[in-house]
Order: sequence, then structure tokens, then C-alpha cells
Amino acid sequence: MDRFVILLELFSIMPALAANSNKPNFVIFLADDMGFSDPAVYGNPLADTPNINKLAKNGLKFTQFYSASSVGSPSRAAILTGRYPVRSGVWGKDTAVFNQELTGGLPHEEITIAEMLAEQDYKSAYIGKWHLGVGYDREFLPLQHGFDKYFGVPHTHSDCPCEICFYPDEPCDYDECIVKHAPCQLMYGNSILEQPVDLTTLSERYARAATSWIQEYSCSSTPFLLFYAFQHTQVPQFAGQRFANKNVGGHYIDSLAELDWQVGQVIDELMKHDLLENTLVIFTSDNGPDLEQMENGGFSGQMRCGKESTFEGGHRVPTILSWPGHIKSGISLELLSHLDIWPTLRRLSGSLEDDFNVVLDGIDFSNVIFSHTKSRRRTILYYPTRPDPEIGAIGIRNNQYKIQNISCEEVCPNSNGGWRCDTQPYILYDLLLDPEERHALSNDTDHYWSTLQLMTEQLFNVSSQIEFGESVLTDFDVTAQMCCDPECKPFPHCCKCKSQYSADLFPLDQSCHGSMEKDQKHGNRHRI
Amino acid sequence: MDRFVILLELFSIMPALAANSNKPNFVIFLADDMGFSDPAVYGNPLADTPNINKLAKNGLKFTQFYSASSVGSPSRAAILTGRYPVRSGVWGKDTAVFNQELTGGLPHEEITIAEMLAEQDYKSAYIGKWHLGVGYDREFLPLQHGFDKYFGVPHTHSDCPCEICFYPDEPCDYDECIVKHAPCQLMYGNSILEQPVDLTTLSERYARAATSWIQEYSCSSTPFLLFYAFQHTQVPQFAGQRFANKNVGGHYIDSLAELDWQVGQVIDELMKHDLLENTLVIFTSDNGPDLEQMENGGFSGQMRCGKESTFEGGHRVPTILSWPGHIKSGISLELLSHLDIWPTLRRLSGSLEDDFNVVLDGIDFSNVIFSHTKSRRRTILYYPTRPDPEIGAIGIRNNQYKIQNISCEEVCPNSNGGWRCDTQPYILYDLLLDPEERHALSNDTDHYWSTLQLMTEQLFNVSSQIEFGESVLTDFDVTAQMCCDPECKPFPHCCKCKSQYSADLFPLDQSCHGSMEKDQKHGNRHRI
Repeated sequence: MDRFVILLELFSIMPALAANSNKPNFVIFLADDMGFSDPAVYGNPLADTPNINKLAKNGLKFTQFYSASSVGSPSRAAILTGRYPVRSGVWGKDTAVFNQELTGGLPHEEITIAEMLAEQDYKSAYIGKWHLGVGYDREFLPLQHGFDKYFGVPHTHSDCPCEICFYPDEPCDYDECIVKHAPCQLMYGNSILEQPVDLTTLSERYARAATSWIQEYSCSSTPFLLFYAFQHTQVPQFAGQRFANKNVGGHYIDSLAELDWQVGQVIDELMKHDLLENTLVIFTSDNGPDLEQMENGGFSGQMRCGKESTFEGGHRVPTILSWPGHIKSGISLELLSHLDIWPTLRRLSGSLEDDFNVVLDGIDFSNVIFSHTKSRRRTILYYPTRPDPEIGAIGIRNNQYKIQNISCEEVCPNSNGGWRCDTQPYILYDLLLDPEERHALSNDTDHYWSTLQLMTEQLFNVSSQIEFGESVLTDFDVTAQMCCDPECKPFPHCCKCKSQYSADLFPLDQSCHGSMEKDQKHGNRHRI
Repeated sequence: MDRFVILLELFSIMPALAANSNKPNFVIFLADDMGFSDPAVYGNPLADTPNINKLAKNGLKFTQFYSASSVGSPSRAAILTGRYPVRSGVWGKDTAVFNQELTGGLPHEEITIAEMLAEQDYKSAYIGKWHLGVGYDREFLPLQHGFDKYFGVPHTHSDCPCEICFYPDEPCDYDECIVKHAPCQLMYGNSILEQPVDLTTLSERYARAATSWIQEYSCSSTPFLLFYAFQHTQVPQFAGQRFANKNVGGHYIDSLAELDWQVGQVIDELMKHDLLENTLVIFTSDNGPDLEQMENGGFSGQMRCGKESTFEGGHRVPTILSWPGHIKSGISLELLSHLDIWPTLRRLSGSLEDDFNVVLDGIDFSNVIFSHTKSRRRTILYYPTRPDPEIGAIGIRNNQYKIQNISCEEVCPNSNGGWRCDTQPYILYDLLLDPEERHALSNDTDHYWSTLQLMTEQLFNVSSQIEFGESVLTDFDVTAQMCCDPECKPFPHCCKCKSQYSADLFPLDQSCHGSMEKDQKHGNRHRI
């Protein structure tokens, strides 16, 4: 499709968008370790997720939408930059994701989705889990990456001595919380608001921040991006008064219900301000479910394996796009990736391709959502959790076939609950006939050999174009951990503070003309 | 809930039903070997099933709805009678299902759903696969079981030398068709209309019969039951011009798309006659997917195993109930069974419990669909494919737990594509925490032992109340096969005839006052 046709299509479908005065808002919900089949609308026979279901009912539910990695930090980097995470350096040999002792972060050379939208006068707010590094001077936190507001727990909440997970005082049921690290921080802008974070009220406070900021943006008629990255459903599971031990499916389903409730709160607030028809809502997950956790992890449905695997369960994520009046509801089988969100939002915000000097890996998928036409994406690359610059991607799929080289790092529970690991190089699957990857194609046919050869060439050609940036997941320093009282001893266990003003931080009944200004750079804190 | 409250509830929700003049119609769609995750709304990432999706979107989608058997004939008997199939004799030691050489059939003592509804002046039509026996004199076909009309292939379409499956002349890709049996019969009433049946036009003709009969019933203002039992998606897969080789997912997806199209045809016809708001539509499947067929079989999603297994994949079936204006749309996690359809339709048709002298195994679930309240069903029994009267059911689930004794008859593909079989007696699963049955509960806790004991007692208590009727799946006679030209030789391969009037059998533009009468008892036939 040439540029003229694309432009014609855009203007015919969304004439309103041509005018700067009516730019669409964007809400991106990013779940953590939620599997392909976790939401009830994706098949979980126990989940009660009415708000996600409603989003799907009114929107477009995707069945072949991919994350760029099977683990969180690289996957998040891909969403924020539109680039494979190996390009931005969010890959490591020793660790796949950020933790409190790592000193690096998402490089500032990257143009995040917030920085891209700022060119079109958008404001951006980030709520929740960041997981893209902090740095010695907090230089990698969201405010330093183009977001105007931040409220959230920047690390994984198991990356600290997690203690109380369920209201009122039930301990976390996860024995791998990092007890040697500092208590988990809850940040307001660049300041530590609370340490350790109270998980039993966290979801309610996230929702309150979201609704308050939506109200504020609505009052000022500013086009906005709200990036809402849940702490749920990563282990340890947790839930507040409303959901703790309230679900028949156990703690995992408690978390899922609390996550779903937050979705409902945001949608209700958009509706209240009459913003639904001017807001593109995206719901997705960073990677597949953590199957090692058994009943405390999620479901990948018929997708094989989960998090940390290059089987489909690791990379294929539940993804729903909703925009009443613009996106026709339904189910889409089109091949898309998290990488494609950045270029699509760029276009919808009114920027042109040439406005940014950046090598992207994503495609603009607005034609898929507005007119249900074919995706222009041709391939998905699969990287292992610890990629090797000498090798690059270890798997690729096109519309029909997939090859992958399953390394022994990859783990995957089989149907008996055990663990297995293959070493056979380049297994070929037909994902159209066998999306479950039950049936490696046999090597005794000519068709097999020619397909394998074509796929191998394609893998080499595509993967070799993805240049590795310098890894930012290499330097560790125990003193880099954020502490609300840096001089206290013994570090880091002494880092405990409570906010003075957490209760009224996000006033919900503020009128449009009242002052919403808060000092985000230097939040008050109070030693406890 | 006592009887008064139930009546009050019924009248408050559906006042119209109290009047005999406005009885609801019933449409039951019964898919064959469709797995829990086959429809796109149940998670199949490749299926394009817009009509089933729409039914779910406007109706109530169930996630814990069960068949009474993991194979077809017993499962169908349960739907038609509201009784476990071992009661009605639809069980066998040597064979689990009917075939052309069996001389028995569903006993006439059973009160089928059609006979039950006839008491309230309903007319009933059966379209499609019967699979409940024929008999020497066709005495077990639908017309002899209370249905007023029948059009369909009474046997499994692999129970004959199936040849052409895909338009225009592509052979069936299934090597277990029974070549020694008579060519498959297409019946109109009790007469053979065509032998062998042309599978490439069958679905179109089924849909045409359905729309024609809906039009006829609508014209005469008769309350009706339309029982539409697809030949799809049992192997061999087949499809006509509209769908053959038109789907990227291969032949299975072609069949699924043709099935879905038929659903759409029926719904459109109901809408055309303004009957949608007076018709309860039920969509379900007889049992789990035939996983042995690999890419030519269906999907059970996160349900373990499929057809012929007592794991969840064998018994849990996709089920949607839709009735605009009466059933609020959503997803229901309530525990229900095919056994419950009979008592629910009895109530909705206006009969009272005492009107029939029959021991039922089902419960009335109208409260679940109309007011989303709790199901009164407490347990599900699991029978093996060849039940033993000395043993009875080999598994049971309640709202939370399931025990089963997995016999070595049970086969189940593991995630590597191989086959396994367990012999361990009474494995315990927590279906709320582990619906995938990945995680047999360990036997080293007191809780395990007490739960196991309670469940074992419950299994014994419930199962021992289900009396086995005499098996009707025992007597074989090669001459019992239906032949359109009984004197021809060599029998049964010579049994080949073509209908004179198949083209205009179901005129679609008949006015309400024209004659719709056809001689169903003695359709003409023409030797070819």
C-alpha cells in the first residue's frame, strides 16, 4: 500500500483526527506475567474478569499478538521504544531483568512513547511497575523518560523482603522474595513516598491516581497517555480488603480480580468525563504466565509453555484494543507485536514517519483496527531470555510456520507437571495447523527441508539486521538501592519510611479550576 | 430454595411464559467432537467463528458445563433424556457408540425431549447426526422418538466408505473410514433420500431444512424445538464450495467455519421472523476434541486431554445460551450438565415436575440463566467410555475437588505429542486452583486424606444410585445396515441411490398459506 492510499484511508476513517484540536487519548494497561488464557474472554474457566471481558466485547480481541520477549524488562522496553530490546541494550548475559542492585537503565538515547507523543503536545502519566532501571541518581525513572507524572513501585515487588500480601496481615506465600534487598519503594515522581510499600492498599491507590489524573487531564483538555502497568499478576500474589481470599480460585484469582477491578475504575472514569469515544484503550501483558508457580501462576491455555520460553506460551499475550465508535468489535487473527504500538500511536497522534530519526522494528497497524484489513507485519522474532550477540534471535515465525532452536535454558512444564528441556536445533512447527506446537514437523519430506531452509534464511536475514546495543544489565552495586533514609543503618534493611500525605495525595473531587499541582520532585517523607 | 420461591422467581422474570399462548421456542445446536477451546470466544487463536462469537456476546457463555460422557452416543442420549446414559442402556462393553451393524437403539421407554415438549403442544424437528441407533425397521430413528421431522445422516459419517469430502472432488483425508459398511445414508424422515450422501453440499442442505422449517413453524405459530446436530467437526473433516480450502488453519478450520456459517443461517432466519426474543438458543458440543487426529482434531485449551478421557478435556464442553431480552449476557462459572437441559426445557415449556413419571439426573437451571444465581447442581460423575455395571462411575467432581481412577483405556496426548496412561487409583485434583489437572494433590497431608475419603464416599453414594439399564450396544448384524435398494448385490456396496427431488425439497420462499406438506414416510428414490 503506498503512502497516498494509507493517508486516504486514515482520513476517510477518522476525519476528526486530522484536526489537532481533537487528538485521541491513549490508555495502555500492561499486566505482568498474565498468560494468554488468563482473562475469562481468553478462555480461563475460573477467572471472573468482567471489566476485561467488557473491553473485549466492545473492542477488538487479538489472538496472535506478541511480546518482544518472554520476560518483563525487555518486553517493557520494546513497548516503550518500538524497538527490539537488544537494540536498546535491555538484555544481559547474567540477568534477564532489572533488580535493585543494577545500576543501569533504559538509555536516554531511546525515544520513549511519552517523548514521541510530547512532540504533539501530549501529557503522559505512568502508574505502576516500571522495571526499566533506576540509576544512582534516579536518572532512569519515568519522569526522566518523558513522563510528566509517576506513581508506582519501580521494581518487581518480589525484589525485596516482601512480607504482608493479603489484607489485613496475611503473609506473602512466595519463598523467593529477595530478603537481602531494601524494602520495596513506592515512588511519587522521583521521591520515595513509602518504604516498604503497603501491598494491601496499593491497587486502590493506583486506581485513585489514575482516576485523579484522568480528571485533571480532562479538565485541562490535554490529550494524554496513561500508561498503567499493574504489579499484578507477578508473584507474590497480593490483594486488598475488597479481594483478599474472596475468590474460589485462590490467591491467583484474587489478584486477577483486583487487576480487573482497576481496569473498571479507569474505564468508569473515562466514561464519567465523556472521554471513551476519544480514547484508544489497549490492554496487554508483558509476557506469558509463570507456570513454575503452579496454582499461583497464570494460564497459557493451548499455548505451549509460558514465561521464559520461546514456545508460544512465552510470547503470545492477551491483547485487546477498544475505542468505541472507531474500532469495530470482534476478534482479530492478525499477526501483531508490542513493537507495533509505538508507530501506531505516532500516526494516531498526528506525527509523520519522518518526524523521528529512529530505527523502528514496529509497523503501524491502524488499518487492522479501523478497517479489519491485513496486518503488514511479516515475522516475529524469538530471543532467548539471555540473548547472545553472536547468535541473535533463535526463532522466527511468519504467517504459517515457526522454527526455533530450543536451548536448554528454556524450561517448560509438560502436562505431567514435570520439567523438560530440548536440545534439538531448529524444530519446525506449522502454527496454523498446530498452534499448540504439539507436533514438530517430521524431517522425512522434501516439503519439510525446503520450508526449513527458507525459514532458516529468513531468520538469519531478519535477525542480522537487529543490531545489539551495549547491555545495560551488567553493572551491580549493592549501594545503588533506593533508600528513603540514605544515612540509616544497617543498610538497606533500615530503609523504612511512611508518607505524610498518602491519604490525600490524589483528591478525587477536585474541581476543574482548583490547583492540582503537587511537588513530584521532592515528596515529603517521614521516618517511622 | 422452596417451590414457592422458585415459582415466584419464574413468574417475576418471565411473566409472558405463564400464558400458554406465548411459549418459547428452543433451538439446540449440538456440535460433534468440538473441544472446549474450539470457538474463537473460547480461546482458539485461529478459529474464525463470528456467528458463535456473536451468540456468546449476546448470551451467557459457560465455562463449567459438562457432557455426560466423553463419547457421542451416550452423550446424545443424556441430552435427549435428561438421564445418565447407563440408565437408558446406551453403554456397551465392546463398543462405546452406535455403528451401522448394531441392531439396537435408544429404548422407546425413554421420554425424549421431543416427547416431553409434545405434551405442551410443541412440534419438534431433528436435523443432522442422530447416532442413537436405527433398528431393523428404522424403529429407533427420530420420527419414532417424538420428532415430527427428520433430515440428516443418522450415523457418524466415518462409518461408511467416505470418499469425497471437499468441494469439488477432493478425497477425505482420514484413513479409518469403514469401507466394509454401506455408503452413508442421508435420511428424509424414515426414507433414504441419497446414498452415499454428498458431503460437499450437506451443510448447505441442513441449513436450508432448518430455515425452511423455522419459516413453516413461524407461519403456523407453533412453538417448536429445532434440534440441529452438526456432522461437524467429527473426522473426516469436510466442506462445500463456500469453505473448502478457504481457511488458513487447514481442513479442521474449514469445517469449523462451515459449522459456524450454519449457526448464522439459523439465527438470521429466526431474526427474519421476529422470533429471536421468543427463542432460547443453546449451543454445545457432545464431548471433547479428538486429539488423536492432531491438526484434524479440535482444541481443548487448558483442559487436559480430550474425547474418550475422564480428564476435563473429555467432558467439559463449550456451551452458550442466548435469549435476547431474557438472558443477560456474560460469562457463567456455574457447574451444569447436559443432563440439566431436559428439566429446564420442561419447566420453560410450562410442564410441571409431576407431569412425567421419570427418574431424572438433571436439575432445572433456569435460575442460573435468568438471574445469574447459583446452580443447584452439586456433582458431576465421570464414566469411562465402556462402563462396568459392577463399578459404575470412576470419577466425581464437586464445586472444588475431583477424584478419578484413570484406567489404562484412557489415552491422552501429553505436550510432546506422545501417549500416556496412568494406573494410579483415585487421583485428587483441586479444580479451582488447578483446572488444568497438572498437579495431582500430594498424599502427605491430613487434608489430602480427609478430602479423598469424603470424595470417595460421595462417588460411591452418588454412583450407586444410578442404575444400569440393559445395554443396547451389544447385538451386531451386518444385514441391519440401511440400503436404498435392499435387493441389490453385492450388499452393502451396491446401496447407491440419488433423490429425485433433493433440489426443491425445502422451498425457501413458500408463503405462509402454501402447502408445506411432504411425504416424509416414503420419499421417492431413484437408482443410479
